Amino acid sequence: MRQANRERGCVIWFTGLSGSGKTTIAQIVEHKLLDGDVPIEILDGDVVRENLSKGLGFSKEDRDINIRRIAFVAHLLQRNGAFVITAAISPYRSIRNEARGMIKEFVEVYAEAPLEVCEERDVKGLYAKARAGEIKGFTGIDDPYEAPSAAEVTCNTAQESPEESAQKVIDKLVELKYLEA
Amino acid sequence: MRQANRERGCVIWFTGLSGSGKTTIAQIVEHKLLDGDVPIEILDGDVVRENLSKGLGFSKEDRDINIRRIAFVAHLLQRNGAFVITAAISPYRSIRNEARGMIKEFVEVYAEAPLEVCEERDVKGLYAKARAGEIKGFTGIDDPYEAPSAAEVTCNTAQESPEESAQKVIDKLVELKYLEA
Repeated sequence: MRQANRERGCVIWFTGLSGSGKTTIAQIVEHKLLDGDVPIEILDGDVVRENLSKGLGFSKEDRDINIRRIAFVAHLLQRNGAFVITAAISPYRSIRNEARGMIKEFVEVYAEAPLEVCEERDVKGLYAKARAGEIKGFTGIDDPYEAPSAAEVTCNTAQESPEESAQKVIDKLVELKYLEA
Repeated sequence: MRQANRERGCVIWFTGLSGSGKTTIAQIVEHKLLDGDVPIEILDGDVVRENLSKGLGFSKEDRDINIRRIAFVAHLLQRNGAFVITAAISPYRSIRNEARGMIKEFVEVYAEAPLEVCEERDVKGLYAKARAGEIKGFTGIDDPYEAPSAAEVTCNTAQESPEESAQKVIDKLVELKYLEA
């Protein structure tokens, strides 16, 4: 059973294309942490859009505002000792780095999968809509995704199982001493 | 020195007119709790508007959205064991009750002062602007304030010192077993 280092929470910041596996891995990490009685919150992209960012669109400006809000809330939780998982696409490197600068206790997890794989999965049917032109500014189709250059963890979700990816995250949390070994 | 009941955080929800003393009392309560090593966050109205609600105005609809966001974040923090103080005007009873229903661990504090007293203080110079017609929809002038009917604490800030008001809040937290006696 994992024990949290109760003095410091942290923010596990997932980034990756829609369909890259962020939420799936995040939920497994969450369960592993809950098993260890670690206080954890997932700030999922969709939930945040509903509760904090309704009315915002998907322009770069609106995406940046949305990510800043996620970072603000994640930071509040982290400095009160919680572990926080964010699972939004967060496609822009500059704003992720801004979040890292604010939060400090920041573990970036890149859910990496080729666009073709994500599009093939198309869990929410969004790629089909984007290809049909029904959604504009869709990351990977007609909006950019800037991959992290130095993420703490990279999960190759086309090759690894979600379980393996989640374990990589846990191992990194132990290595960084957010969890006790 | 106060000790928190670590199993349950709570949300100390201030409501009252601009200038009624919400933030002043909140800051004294914060210091008293910090002295006891209780993890505490103040979600001040202005700070929240800047970080979560930029772009929202002061129509009833926008105010309600703003208050729902405060409640969402306060709840996340509370269920991770933090003490949270919100200090927004939150003029509408229905939305405060919605927040109470979501959060459960909810201590409503009414900073009560006659409008004339708040206007006389006019710490931010906003009443003058509202009277001059430079600000529209200002609570107490041309927008309603609905006083709580059953707040856990009422601070009569025209008669009590901020220190006395803050002590009433602390006493209530002890009575409700959020703090150990």
